[in-house]
Amino acid sequence: MIIKTPTQYFLVSGASDGFSLLNAFDGALLQAGIGNTNIVKMSSIVPPHCQRIAPVPLPPGALVPAAYAAIRSDIPGEIISAGVAVALPEDENQNGLIMEYSAKGDQRKIEEMVRNMAVEGMKLRGWKIKDLKSIAIEYRIKRIGAALAAVVLWD
Amino acid sequence: MIIKTPTQYFLVSGASDGFSLLNAFDGALLQAGIGNTNIVKMSSIVPPHCQRIAPVPLPPGALVPAAYAAIRSDIPGEIISAGVAVALPEDENQNGLIMEYSAKGDQRKIEEMVRNMAVEGMKLRGWKIKDLKSIAIEYRIKRIGAALAAVVLWD
Amino acid sequence: MIIKTPTQYFLVSGASDGFSLLNAFDGALLQAGIGNTNIVKMSSIVPPHCQRIAPVPLPPGALVPAAYAAIRSDIPGEIISAGVAVALPEDENQNGLIMEYSAKGDQRKIEEMVRNMAVEGMKLRGWKIKDLKSIAIEYRIKRIGAALAAVVLWD
Repeated sequence: MIIKTPTQYFLVSGASDGFSLLNAFDGALLQAGIGNTNIVKMSSIVPPHCQRIAPVPLPPGALVPAAYAAIRSDIPGEIISAGVAVALPEDENQNGLIMEYSAKGDQRKIEEMVRNMAVEGMKLRGWKIKDLKSIAIEYRIKRIGAALAAVVLWD
Repeated sequence: MIIKTPTQYFLVSGASDGFSLLNAFDGALLQAGIGNTNIVKMSSIVPPHCQRIAPVPLPPGALVPAAYAAIRSDIPGEIISAGVAVALPEDENQNGLIMEYSAKGDQRKIEEMVRNMAVEGMKLRGWKIKDLKSIAIEYRIKRIGAALAAVVLWD
Repeated sequence: MIIKTPTQYFLVSGASDGFSLLNAFDGALLQAGIGNTNIVKMSSIVPPHCQRIAPVPLPPGALVPAAYAAIRSDIPGEIISAGVAVALPEDENQNGLIMEYSAKGDQRKIEEMVRNMAVEGMKLRGWKIKDLKSIAIEYRIKRIGAALAAVVLWD
Protein backbone atom coordinates (compact mmCIF):
# COMPACT_ATOMS: atom_id res chain seq x y z
CA MET A 1 0.00 0.00 0.00
CA ILE A 2 3.06 2.22 0.14
CA ILE A 3 4.50 2.87 -3.28
CA LYS A 4 8.08 1.90 -3.87
CA THR A 5 8.81 3.78 -7.05
CA PRO A 6 6.76 6.91 -7.68
CA THR A 7 6.07 7.21 -11.39
CA GLN A 8 3.34 9.83 -11.27
CA TYR A 9 2.56 12.99 -9.34
CA PHE A 10 -0.21 15.48 -9.05
CA LEU A 11 -0.88 18.86 -7.46
CA VAL A 12 -3.80 19.51 -5.14
CA SER A 13 -4.97 22.17 -2.71
CA GLY A 14 -7.71 22.58 -0.15
CA ALA A 15 -8.87 24.76 2.72
CA SER A 16 -11.46 24.43 5.44
CA ASP A 17 -12.73 25.56 8.80
CA GLY A 18 -13.04 22.90 11.47
CA PHE A 19 -13.85 22.03 15.07
CA SER A 20 -10.15 22.26 16.02
CA LEU A 21 -6.90 23.15 14.24
CA LEU A 22 -6.40 19.47 13.38
CA ASN A 23 -10.00 19.08 12.22
CA ALA A 24 -9.49 22.11 9.97
CA PHE A 25 -6.35 20.49 8.54
CA ASP A 26 -8.32 17.26 8.04
CA GLY A 27 -11.00 19.26 6.24
CA ALA A 28 -8.38 20.85 4.00
CA LEU A 29 -6.98 17.40 3.15
CA LEU A 30 -10.51 16.17 2.36
CA GLN A 31 -11.18 19.16 0.12
CA ALA A 32 -7.88 18.45 -1.64
CA GLY A 33 -9.05 14.86 -2.25
CA ILE A 34 -6.42 13.22 -0.03
CA GLY A 35 -8.20 13.28 3.32
CA ASN A 36 -8.72 9.55 3.64
CA THR A 37 -5.09 8.58 3.11
CA ASN A 38 -2.03 8.46 5.35
CA ILE A 39 0.12 11.30 4.13
CA VAL A 40 3.83 10.84 4.87
CA LYS A 41 5.67 14.16 4.63
CA MET A 42 8.88 14.13 2.65
CA SER A 43 11.43 16.58 1.30
CA SER A 44 10.88 17.51 -1.87
CA ILE A 45 11.85 15.92 -5.14
CA VAL A 46 10.02 14.72 -8.26
CA PRO A 47 11.94 11.64 -9.44
CA PRO A 48 13.20 11.64 -13.03
CA HIS A 49 10.63 10.47 -15.63
CA CYS A 50 7.79 10.90 -13.13
CA GLN A 51 4.69 11.99 -15.05
CA ARG A 52 2.25 14.67 -14.00
CA ILE A 53 -1.32 13.41 -13.97
CA ALA A 54 -4.68 14.84 -13.01
CA PRO A 55 -5.56 14.10 -9.37
CA VAL A 56 -6.83 10.56 -8.93
CA PRO A 57 -8.73 8.92 -6.08
CA LEU A 58 -6.30 7.12 -3.78
CA PRO A 59 -7.04 3.89 -1.90
CA PRO A 60 -8.37 4.71 1.58
CA GLY A 61 -5.65 4.35 4.21
CA ALA A 62 -2.81 4.13 1.68
CA LEU A 63 0.59 5.43 2.81
CA VAL A 64 1.13 8.34 0.43
CA PRO A 65 4.38 10.31 0.19
CA ALA A 66 3.75 14.00 -0.36
CA ALA A 67 5.47 17.35 -0.11
CA TYR A 68 3.13 19.98 1.22
CA ALA A 69 2.73 23.44 2.64
CA ALA A 70 0.12 23.82 5.36
CA ILE A 71 -0.94 26.71 7.54
CA ARG A 72 -3.48 26.90 10.35
CA SER A 73 -5.03 29.82 12.19
CA ASP A 74 -7.67 30.48 14.80
CA ILE A 75 -7.90 34.21 14.20
CA PRO A 76 -11.29 34.94 12.58
CA GLY A 77 -10.96 37.04 9.44
CA GLU A 78 -7.28 36.29 8.94
CA ILE A 79 -6.28 35.41 5.38
CA ILE A 80 -3.88 32.50 5.00
CA SER A 81 -2.40 30.94 1.87
CA ALA A 82 -0.44 27.81 1.01
CA GLY A 83 1.35 26.97 -2.22
CA VAL A 84 3.67 24.47 -3.86
CA ALA A 85 5.74 24.76 -7.01
CA VAL A 86 7.39 22.09 -9.15
CA ALA A 87 10.36 22.96 -11.36
CA LEU A 88 11.28 20.34 -13.94
CA PRO A 89 14.73 20.27 -15.55
CA GLU A 90 15.57 20.35 -19.25
CA ASP A 91 17.60 17.20 -18.78
CA GLU A 92 14.98 14.48 -18.29
CA ASN A 93 17.45 12.26 -16.45
CA GLN A 94 17.62 14.80 -13.65
CA ASN A 95 14.98 15.16 -10.99
CA GLY A 96 12.49 17.95 -10.50
CA LEU A 97 12.37 20.12 -7.40
CA ILE A 98 9.37 20.85 -5.21
CA MET A 99 9.15 23.94 -3.05
CA GLU A 100 6.49 24.67 -0.42
CA TYR A 101 5.48 27.95 1.15
CA SER A 102 2.68 29.14 3.38
CA ALA A 103 2.03 32.41 5.16
CA LYS A 104 -0.56 34.98 6.08
CA GLY A 105 -1.44 36.89 2.96
CA ASP A 106 -3.11 36.45 -0.38
CA GLN A 107 -2.68 33.62 -2.85
CA ARG A 108 -0.97 35.69 -5.53
CA LYS A 109 1.85 36.71 -3.21
CA ILE A 110 2.40 33.22 -1.80
CA GLU A 111 2.29 31.56 -5.23
CA GLU A 112 4.79 34.08 -6.62
CA MET A 113 7.10 33.40 -3.68
CA VAL A 114 6.97 29.61 -3.98
CA ARG A 115 7.61 29.80 -7.74
CA ASN A 116 10.63 32.01 -7.10
CA MET A 117 11.86 29.51 -4.52
CA ALA A 118 11.68 26.69 -7.08
CA VAL A 119 13.54 28.82 -9.65
CA GLU A 120 16.26 29.63 -7.10
CA GLY A 121 16.55 25.95 -6.13
CA MET A 122 17.19 24.96 -9.74
CA LYS A 123 19.66 27.82 -10.11
CA LEU A 124 21.55 26.45 -7.09
CA ARG A 125 21.80 23.09 -8.89
CA GLY A 126 22.93 24.78 -12.11
CA TRP A 127 20.04 23.18 -13.98
CA LYS A 128 17.90 24.82 -16.65
CA ILE A 129 14.14 24.78 -16.12
CA LYS A 130 11.95 23.20 -18.75
CA ASP A 131 8.66 23.64 -16.95
CA LEU A 132 7.41 25.37 -13.82
CA LYS A 133 4.05 24.42 -12.34
CA SER A 134 2.39 25.66 -9.19
CA ILE A 135 -0.80 25.58 -7.19
CA ALA A 136 -1.86 27.78 -4.31
CA ILE A 137 -4.94 28.45 -2.25
CA GLU A 138 -6.17 31.36 -0.16
CA TYR A 139 -8.54 31.08 2.77
CA ARG A 140 -10.25 33.51 5.10
CA ILE A 141 -10.66 32.04 8.57
CA LYS A 142 -14.20 31.86 9.91
CA ARG A 143 -13.33 30.53 13.35
CA ILE A 144 -10.56 27.90 13.09
CA GLY A 145 -9.15 27.15 9.65
CA ALA A 146 -6.39 25.60 7.61
CA ALA A 147 -5.06 25.75 4.05
CA LEU A 148 -2.93 23.18 2.28
CA ALA A 149 -1.19 22.73 -1.06
CA ALA A 150 0.52 19.46 -1.91
CA VAL A 151 2.48 17.53 -4.48
CA VAL A 152 1.45 13.89 -4.17
CA LEU A 153 3.70 11.10 -5.48
CA TRP A 154 1.94 8.04 -6.79
CA ASP A 155 2.34 5.02 -9.05
CA MET B 1 10.95 -3.93 7.22
CA ILE B 2 8.45 -1.26 6.28
CA ILE B 3 4.95 -2.62 5.97
CA LYS B 4 3.20 -2.14 2.68
CA THR B 5 -0.37 -2.87 3.65
CA PRO B 6 -1.28 -2.24 7.25
CA THR B 7 -3.76 -4.88 8.39
CA GLN B 8 -3.56 -4.32 12.13
CA TYR B 9 -3.30 -1.41 14.51
CA PHE B 10 -2.88 -0.83 18.20
CA LEU B 11 -3.00 2.02 20.67
CA VAL B 12 -0.18 2.82 23.09
CA SER B 13 0.88 5.62 25.39
CA GLY B 14 3.89 6.49 27.48
CA ALA B 15 5.51 9.31 29.43
CA SER B 16 8.93 9.91 30.91
CA ASP B 17 11.43 12.38 32.22
CA GLY B 18 14.81 12.47 30.48
CA PHE B 19 18.21 14.07 30.15
CA SER B 20 16.95 16.37 27.36
CA LEU B 21 13.61 17.00 25.64
CA LEU B 22 14.50 14.38 23.02
CA ASN B 23 15.66 11.89 25.66
CA ALA B 24 12.33 12.40 27.42
CA PHE B 25 10.49 11.72 24.15
CA ASP B 26 12.67 8.62 23.65
CA GLY B 27 11.74 7.52 27.17
CA ALA B 28 8.06 8.02 26.42
CA LEU B 29 8.40 5.91 23.25
CA LEU B 30 10.18 3.19 25.26
CA GLN B 31 7.47 3.20 27.92
CA ALA B 32 4.89 2.91 25.14
CA GLY B 33 6.75 -0.15 23.82
CA ILE B 34 7.81 1.44 20.51
CA GLY B 35 11.09 3.05 21.55
CA ASN B 36 13.38 0.78 19.57
CA THR B 37 11.64 1.32 16.22
CA ASN B 38 11.80 4.01 13.56
CA ILE B 39 8.47 5.78 13.84
CA VAL B 40 7.37 7.53 10.65
CA LYS B 41 4.69 10.12 11.37
CA MET B 42 1.66 10.06 9.11
CA SER B 43 -1.75 11.66 8.87
CA SER B 44 -4.20 9.81 10.23
CA ILE B 45 -6.30 7.03 8.81
CA VAL B 46 -7.05 3.42 9.79
CA PRO B 47 -7.39 1.52 6.50
CA PRO B 48 -10.62 -0.41 5.91
CA HIS B 49 -10.66 -3.93 7.40
CA CYS B 50 -7.65 -3.12 9.60
CA GLN B 51 -8.01 -5.03 12.87
CA ARG B 52 -7.29 -3.69 16.31
CA ILE B 53 -4.89 -5.90 18.24
CA ALA B 54 -3.20 -5.73 21.62
CA PRO B 55 0.23 -4.05 21.44
CA VAL B 56 2.88 -6.41 20.11
CA PRO B 57 6.67 -6.25 20.21
CA LEU B 58 7.97 -4.77 16.96
CA PRO B 59 11.25 -5.75 15.26
CA PRO B 60 14.03 -3.41 16.43
CA GLY B 61 14.73 -0.72 13.83
CA ALA B 62 11.60 -1.44 11.79
CA LEU B 63 10.09 1.51 9.91
CA VAL B 64 6.71 1.86 11.59
CA PRO B 65 3.97 4.23 10.39
CA ALA B 66 2.13 5.83 13.27
CA ALA B 67 -0.15 8.74 14.06
CA TYR B 68 0.72 10.27 17.38
CA ALA B 69 0.29 13.18 19.73
CA ALA B 70 3.37 14.21 21.68
CA ILE B 71 4.09 17.02 24.08
CA ARG B 72 7.30 18.04 25.84
CA SER B 73 8.00 20.42 28.68
CA ASP B 74 10.89 21.53 30.85
CA ILE B 75 8.77 23.28 33.46
CA PRO B 76 8.96 21.24 36.68
CA GLY B 77 5.54 20.50 38.10
CA GLU B 78 3.69 21.20 34.87
CA ILE B 79 1.04 18.64 33.94
CA ILE B 80 0.96 17.59 30.28
CA SER B 81 -1.30 15.10 28.51
CA ALA B 82 -1.40 13.42 25.10
CA GLY B 83 -4.23 11.43 23.55
CA VAL B 84 -5.36 9.75 20.36
CA ALA B 85 -8.82 8.62 19.30
CA VAL B 86 -9.91 6.21 16.57
CA ALA B 87 -13.39 6.45 15.09
CA LEU B 88 -14.47 3.47 13.00
CA PRO B 89 -17.32 3.73 10.49
CA GLU B 90 -20.46 1.61 10.32
CA ASP B 91 -19.63 0.83 6.68
CA GLU B 92 -16.67 -1.54 6.91
CA ASN B 93 -15.50 -0.62 3.42
CA GLN B 94 -14.77 2.89 4.60
CA ASN B 95 -11.70 3.85 6.57
CA GLY B 96 -11.44 4.84 10.19
CA LEU B 97 -10.20 8.24 11.33
CA ILE B 98 -7.44 8.96 13.85
CA MET B 99 -7.25 12.23 15.76
CA GLU B 100 -4.38 13.37 17.96
CA TYR B 101 -4.33 16.03 20.66
CA SER B 102 -1.88 17.12 23.32
CA ALA B 103 -1.83 20.07 25.70
CA LYS B 104 -1.10 21.19 29.20
CA GLY B 105 -3.84 19.85 31.43
CA ASP B 106 -5.20 16.62 32.80
CA GLN B 107 -5.85 13.40 30.94
CA ARG B 108 -9.61 13.53 31.24
CA LYS B 109 -9.84 16.89 29.47
CA ILE B 110 -7.42 15.94 26.68
CA GLU B 111 -9.07 12.55 26.08
CA GLU B 112 -12.53 14.14 25.91
CA MET B 113 -11.22 16.69 23.39
CA VAL B 114 -9.57 14.14 21.11
CA ARG B 115 -12.69 11.95 21.16
CA ASN B 116 -14.80 14.96 20.17
CA MET B 117 -12.33 15.70 17.36
CA ALA B 118 -12.76 12.17 15.99
CA VAL B 119 -16.56 12.47 16.20
CA GLU B 120 -16.45 15.80 14.35
CA GLY B 121 -14.15 14.34 11.69
CA MET B 122 -16.59 11.55 10.96
CA LYS B 123 -19.47 14.04 10.93
CA LEU B 124 -17.58 16.04 8.29
CA ARG B 125 -17.39 12.87 6.17
CA GLY B 126 -21.09 12.16 6.70
CA TRP B 127 -20.24 8.73 8.11
CA LYS B 128 -21.90 7.05 11.08
CA ILE B 129 -19.59 5.86 13.87
CA LYS B 130 -19.65 2.20 14.82
CA ASP B 131 -16.91 2.35 17.42
CA LEU B 132 -14.84 5.03 19.14
CA LYS B 133 -11.66 4.07 20.95
CA SER B 134 -9.14 6.31 22.67
CA ILE B 135 -6.08 6.32 24.86
CA ALA B 136 -4.51 9.20 26.75
CA ILE B 137 -1.82 9.74 29.32
CA GLU B 138 -1.08 12.44 31.87
CA TYR B 139 2.36 13.30 33.19
CA ARG B 140 3.72 15.68 35.81
CA ILE B 141 7.13 17.00 34.79
CA LYS B 142 9.96 16.37 37.23
CA ARG B 143 12.66 18.27 35.33
CA ILE B 144 12.33 17.62 31.58
CA GLY B 145 9.52 15.39 30.41
CA ALA B 146 7.39 14.17 27.53
CA ALA B 147 4.11 12.37 27.00
CA LEU B 148 2.97 10.47 23.93
CA ALA B 149 -0.09 8.62 22.68
CA ALA B 150 0.00 6.75 19.37
CA VAL B 151 -1.91 4.63 16.92
CA VAL B 152 0.57 2.21 15.37
CA LEU B 153 -0.16 0.54 12.03
CA TRP B 154 1.23 -2.92 11.58
CA ASP B 155 0.83 -6.14 9.60
CA MET C 1 12.59 3.07 -4.45
CA ILE C 2 11.87 3.02 -0.75
CA ILE C 3 14.05 0.56 1.11
CA LYS C 4 12.31 -2.12 3.11
CA THR C 5 15.14 -3.34 5.26
CA PRO C 6 17.91 -0.87 5.99
CA THR C 7 21.22 -2.72 6.09
CA GLN C 8 23.57 0.27 5.89
CA TYR C 9 23.75 3.76 7.28
CA PHE C 10 25.93 6.79 6.93
CA LEU C 11 26.42 10.18 8.58
CA VAL C 12 26.37 13.45 6.66
CA SER C 13 26.19 17.17 7.38
CA GLY C 14 25.76 20.35 5.41
CA ALA C 15 25.02 24.05 5.74
CA SER C 16 24.08 26.81 3.34
CA ASP C 17 22.61 30.23 2.84
CA GLY C 18 19.65 30.48 0.51
CA PHE C 19 16.94 32.62 -1.05
CA SER C 20 14.46 31.59 1.67
CA LEU C 21 14.57 29.44 4.82
CA LEU C 22 13.49 26.42 2.76
CA ASN C 23 16.01 27.18 0.02
CA ALA C 24 18.71 27.34 2.69
CA PHE C 25 17.58 23.95 4.02
CA ASP C 26 17.62 22.61 0.44
CA GLY C 27 21.15 23.96 0.06
CA ALA C 28 22.21 22.24 3.28
CA LEU C 29 20.75 18.95 2.03
CA LEU C 30 22.61 19.38 -1.27
CA GLN C 31 25.88 20.11 0.52
CA ALA C 32 25.30 16.97 2.61
CA GLY C 33 24.88 14.98 -0.61
CA ILE C 34 21.21 14.12 -0.07
CA GLY C 35 19.54 17.13 -1.68
CA ASN C 36 18.05 15.33 -4.63
CA THR C 37 16.24 12.67 -2.59
CA ASN C 38 12.96 12.55 -0.73
CA ILE C 39 13.97 12.47 2.92
CA VAL C 40 11.38 10.90 5.20
CA LYS C 41 12.00 11.87 8.81
CA MET C 42 11.89 9.07 11.33
CA SER C 43 12.68 8.47 14.99
CA SER C 44 15.76 7.30 15.54
CA ILE C 45 17.10 3.77 15.53
CA VAL C 46 19.91 1.94 13.72
CA PRO C 47 18.60 -1.60 13.14
CA PRO C 48 20.71 -4.49 14.44
CA HIS C 49 23.51 -5.62 12.07
CA CYS C 50 23.20 -2.41 10.04
CA GLN C 51 26.67 -1.49 8.75
CA ARG C 52 28.16 1.97 8.69
CA ILE C 53 29.40 2.95 5.24
CA ALA C 54 30.93 6.03 3.69
CA PRO C 55 28.27 8.33 2.17
CA VAL C 56 27.12 7.07 -1.22
CA PRO C 57 25.23 8.79 -4.03
CA LEU C 58 21.53 8.00 -3.73
CA PRO C 59 19.14 7.57 -6.69
CA PRO C 60 17.47 10.93 -7.46
CA GLY C 61 13.97 11.07 -6.00
CA ALA C 62 14.40 7.97 -3.84
CA LEU C 63 12.37 7.86 -0.63
CA VAL C 64 15.10 7.85 2.01
CA PRO C 65 14.47 7.33 5.73
CA ALA C 66 16.69 9.52 7.85
CA ALA C 67 17.01 10.89 11.36
CA TYR C 68 18.23 14.45 11.31
CA ALA C 69 18.76 17.64 13.23
CA ALA C 70 18.14 20.86 11.31
CA ILE C 71 18.17 24.50 12.28
CA ARG C 72 17.37 27.62 10.27
CA SER C 73 17.91 31.29 10.94
CA ASP C 74 17.52 34.62 9.21
CA ILE C 75 19.62 36.60 11.65
CA PRO C 76 22.84 37.64 9.89
CA GLY C 77 25.93 36.76 11.88
CA GLU C 78 24.18 34.22 14.08
CA ILE C 79 26.05 30.95 14.59
CA ILE C 80 23.95 27.79 14.38
CA SER C 81 24.97 24.16 14.72
CA ALA C 82 23.38 20.77 14.11
CA GLY C 83 24.61 17.35 15.17
CA VAL C 84 23.69 13.69 15.31
CA ALA C 85 25.18 10.87 17.36
CA VAL C 86 24.90 7.11 16.95
CA ALA C 87 25.46 4.81 19.93
CA LEU C 88 25.91 1.14 19.09
CA PRO C 89 25.40 -1.57 21.71
CA GLU C 90 27.84 -4.26 22.77
CA ASP C 91 25.18 -6.86 22.05
CA GLU C 92 25.01 -6.95 18.25
CA ASN C 93 21.47 -8.29 18.31
CA GLN C 94 20.28 -5.06 19.84
CA ASN C 95 19.70 -1.88 17.90
CA GLY C 96 21.71 1.30 17.95
CA LEU C 97 20.28 4.64 19.03
CA ILE C 98 20.39 7.91 17.10
CA MET C 99 20.11 11.27 18.81
CA GLU C 100 19.72 14.66 17.11
CA TYR C 101 20.37 18.12 18.46
CA SER C 102 20.57 21.60 17.01
CA ALA C 103 20.84 25.03 18.59
CA LYS C 104 22.49 28.40 18.36
CA GLY C 105 26.09 27.99 19.37
CA ASP C 106 29.30 26.42 18.22
CA GLN C 107 29.82 22.92 16.87
CA ARG C 108 31.85 21.68 19.81
CA LYS C 109 29.08 22.41 22.30
CA ILE C 110 26.32 20.90 20.15
CA GLU C 111 28.32 17.78 19.32
CA GLU C 112 29.14 17.23 22.99
CA MET C 113 25.46 17.58 23.87
CA VAL C 114 24.23 15.15 21.25
CA ARG C 115 26.85 12.57 22.23
CA ASN C 116 25.76 12.88 25.85
CA MET C 117 22.14 12.42 24.74
CA ALA C 118 23.04 9.16 22.97
CA VAL C 119 24.95 7.94 26.05
CA GLU C 120 21.98 8.75 28.29
CA GLY C 121 19.60 6.98 25.89
CA MET C 122 21.64 3.79 26.06
CA LYS C 123 21.84 4.11 29.85
CA LEU C 124 18.04 4.29 29.94
CA ARG C 125 17.93 1.00 28.02
CA GLY C 126 20.51 -0.57 30.34
CA TRP C 127 22.74 -1.34 27.37
CA LYS C 128 26.52 -1.01 27.24
CA ILE C 129 27.96 1.10 24.42
CA LYS C 130 30.43 -0.52 22.06
CA ASP C 131 30.87 2.48 19.78
CA LEU C 132 29.80 6.13 19.71
CA LYS C 133 29.96 8.09 16.46
CA SER C 134 28.89 11.63 15.77
CA ILE C 135 28.91 14.38 13.21
CA ALA C 136 28.13 18.06 13.64
CA ILE C 137 28.38 21.24 11.63
CA GLU C 138 28.57 24.92 12.51
CA TYR C 139 27.39 27.75 10.28
CA ARG C 140 27.46 31.53 10.47
CA ILE C 141 24.40 33.03 8.79
CA LYS C 142 25.07 35.47 5.96
CA ARG C 143 21.44 36.43 5.30
CA ILE C 144 19.20 33.33 5.53
CA GLY C 145 20.83 30.03 6.41
CA ALA C 146 20.39 26.46 7.58
CA ALA C 147 22.51 23.66 9.01
CA LEU C 148 21.75 19.97 9.01
CA ALA C 149 23.26 16.73 10.31
CA ALA C 150 21.71 13.39 9.41
CA VAL C 151 21.92 9.65 9.79
CA VAL C 152 20.71 8.13 6.52
CA LEU C 153 19.46 4.53 6.38
CA TRP C 154 20.10 2.68 3.18
CA ASP C 155 20.39 -0.77 1.64
